[in-house]
Amino acid sequence: MKNEKIPYKIYLEESEMPKNWYNVRADMKKKPAPLLNPGTGKPMTAEELGVVFCDELVQQELDDTTPFIEIPEEIRNFYKMYRPSPLVRAYCLEEKLGTPAKIYYKFEGNNTSGSHKLNSAIAQAYYAKKQGLKGVTTETGAGQWGTALSMACSYFGLDCKVFMVKCSYEQKPFRREVMRTYGAEVTPSPSETTNIGKKILAEHPGTTGSLGCAISEAVEVAVGTEGYRYVLGSVLNQVLLHQSVIGLETKAALDKYNIKPDIIIGCAGGGSNLGGLIAPFMGEKLRGEADYRIIAVEPASCPSLTRGVYAYDFCDTGMVCPLAKMYTLGSDFIPSPNHAGGLRYHGMSSTLSELYDQKLMEATSVVQTEVFEAAEQFARVEGILPAPESSHAIRVAIDEALKCKETGEEKTIVFGLTGTGYFDMVAYEKFHDGKMTDYIPSDEDLKLARAKLPKVK
Amino acid sequence: MKNEKIPYKIYLEESEMPKNWYNVRADMKKKPAPLLNPGTGKPMTAEELGVVFCDELVQQELDDTTPFIEIPEEIRNFYKMYRPSPLVRAYCLEEKLGTPAKIYYKFEGNNTSGSHKLNSAIAQAYYAKKQGLKGVTTETGAGQWGTALSMACSYFGLDCKVFMVKCSYEQKPFRREVMRTYGAEVTPSPSETTNIGKKILAEHPGTTGSLGCAISEAVEVAVGTEGYRYVLGSVLNQVLLHQSVIGLETKAALDKYNIKPDIIIGCAGGGSNLGGLIAPFMGEKLRGEADYRIIAVEPASCPSLTRGVYAYDFCDTGMVCPLAKMYTLGSDFIPSPNHAGGLRYHGMSSTLSELYDQKLMEATSVVQTEVFEAAEQFARVEGILPAPESSHAIRVAIDEALKCKETGEEKTIVFGLTGTGYFDMVAYEKFHDGKMTDYIPSDEDLKLARAKLPKVK
Repeated sequence: MKNEKIPYKIYLEESEMPKNWYNVRADMKKKPAPLLNPGTGKPMTAEELGVVFCDELVQQELDDTTPFIEIPEEIRNFYKMYRPSPLVRAYCLEEKLGTPAKIYYKFEGNNTSGSHKLNSAIAQAYYAKKQGLKGVTTETGAGQWGTALSMACSYFGLDCKVFMVKCSYEQKPFRREVMRTYGAEVTPSPSETTNIGKKILAEHPGTTGSLGCAISEAVEVAVGTEGYRYVLGSVLNQVLLHQSVIGLETKAALDKYNIKPDIIIGCAGGGSNLGGLIAPFMGEKLRGEADYRIIAVEPASCPSLTRGVYAYDFCDTGMVCPLAKMYTLGSDFIPSPNHAGGLRYHGMSSTLSELYDQKLMEATSVVQTEVFEAAEQFARVEGILPAPESSHAIRVAIDEALKCKETGEEKTIVFGLTGTGYFDMVAYEKFHDGKMTDYIPSDEDLKLARAKLPKVK
Repeated sequence: MKNEKIPYKIYLEESEMPKNWYNVRADMKKKPAPLLNPGTGKPMTAEELGVVFCDELVQQELDDTTPFIEIPEEIRNFYKMYRPSPLVRAYCLEEKLGTPAKIYYKFEGNNTSGSHKLNSAIAQAYYAKKQGLKGVTTETGAGQWGTALSMACSYFGLDCKVFMVKCSYEQKPFRREVMRTYGAEVTPSPSETTNIGKKILAEHPGTTGSLGCAISEAVEVAVGTEGYRYVLGSVLNQVLLHQSVIGLETKAALDKYNIKPDIIIGCAGGGSNLGGLIAPFMGEKLRGEADYRIIAVEPASCPSLTRGVYAYDFCDTGMVCPLAKMYTLGSDFIPSPNHAGGLRYHGMSSTLSELYDQKLMEATSVVQTEVFEAAEQFARVEGILPAPESSHAIRVAIDEALKCKETGEEKTIVFGLTGTGYFDMVAYEKFHDGKMTDYIPSDEDLKLARAKLPKVK
């Protein structure tokens, strides 16, 4: 289809949808560092991980040599309900900016969870069901992951217990109701239903919770309940594997029209979206077949790649999870109330951290008022109301397109539009009313949090 | 493509999108009754209507002979941002119900306004811009129409003044923020900014407003402000014309796979969605080329077709609008607080009313708890969180599919899924908590409201 006019939206046929996930670790010469047992300091075994996670997901977590892993037919059938997602040519944004750049975005918000999280949720629910489990536990902050998992569990008839960070539980009652619509049990965290919750409440009465604390509670319940396992929506290798469906579809759509991107941009919290979007492109880069500029965008208020250190750290507050080597601000770092809840995590996927350390991708950070300016500009011309998280990528895509305007370069920019902002109108309201502020942690803040990193050889 | 396996989602190519709207009135032997001037009792002229509405829209309103009206290229380009919308085969719902029926739904919620309203909003904004106007005014109840119009005005650089029914303004602050994101000025109605608003506030201090009152305020401002006109999101012939894009795409997608529906179902408030969905099918019926069962579904709390009378009535509370002949409960009828705000209108499109009167379509009414049961069942298997309005159609589609289960008939059912329920979680919450009640007006209530119908020969 070379030279044909590019449509506004490129949809793949169902027959063109990926049949395998792509495991970028297989093409990495230097592999991401393994998870460590915090007690022994030794790499976690499949047996140890199997207490917390589903067996087949543990295999995926540890497998850093198999490049393609088949997507089971049941999952592919579920994907067909909301995938392939469109790759949209942002003609209207280009015109508004007056840029010679060609901008594309992969839109993952066209499902009720409102984000890309469903791609991994359905996979994790499927493997839990296949193992004959009764249910799963998880945590959720902004709520996209909890919603996605609720939908996936409802589809396979699994119980779903969600620990929702208390401030989100109270501030986002509608998110909670969507989860209940899908039959999930939603508990504000910290809660009196777990030992770690009780301990935290005793030590910090009136705390509104954190993601790290909710993870600890969810893991405790999974480990202590017959027929349950814990599932996680980001950071892990298995999640990046499932999310590779985003990048594979993006690449297939671009290839169909013989388009080669120059720059690929994604927002990065724990790394699930970015890792998925860039997977096949990074694969080409690792194999020396092509080159791309790849940019991770994080909030200036929680800058793990741009201002963190590359070290082993705890994944949760209760320190019940394995240690992961990652770019981290320290598990004690308290992110400021940035409205992009999905990006408020102290660390970054081990795989992405290693790729960043090898200088195979760049990272940049942006402040939230500039993010919302970009969000509003995008919404007005492209019609989609973007999530605050996604809008970090929009900001940098617009900035790169404006650079092209100055230089006259016709670069092709692809970014990930991970989701919609329907449940983020409180943030939009603050922005409209001029009440949104920017927060950048001081060097002193970062130093303090870093001081509490665990000592690992 | 006969006999090929039907995909989960049938997407048309951009080249297959309709280039013309279809005007069902052209194929009606007995035409819908004209709008009347409430002062003279005579049909409204183009000149009279031109004071309130844009010139080209007035032509469309009055034209009941031209079957196809070209969709201007600018509008077709905008449509490409969110259209073609998918026609989805509800494989998962069919399986859950265990029905031999084949169920399809046309999903119109994949745009930020969250509903089909954008199809007409962009057309009305386009003609306003073309006429060199400065801006438009409108009213909104549930908020979908106001959001859609805000998006459309933002795209064409028009001012947009929205009068939002006060109780919605207060209960749905997020809807209001979406409109503000698109640059609209949103005023709670009744307001002190208009004469009719002041009058209503003086007579009924503390009133939370109504759609009829907000219409009156919007019309007053449009008529009294240089360079402004009023636009309406339902009821009018022009709106049904623009919404025919829904039905035309549906028919094109079905034809592509040689599928002939037996039953077509849509929810009906003012009639914009139903009129659009059924247009080309009704055209075949009127021309004697095919037969279909067509079912309008309305809330039992606001049953204009099933329990109203076919008569001339006021479209608004302030009685500043023309009279329309329609199935109506009386403009004085106060609908109970049903959560499907988009279906709380006392009358029904003149075109649909006439078709119903000619027995070319059926109507049925359903209570809201049964609607939400269907909504939740649908959400859990099909993944989309439906709007309460749309869920009226889901309820009846499920009922018809269950009848097929009893009889063993393999009927093909098509229904319109007009939008998403992200801003309706208060209603879902009430349903989950068992606090939702059903209300059916008594015969006495209806008689009282009917007594105030205007006397027209």
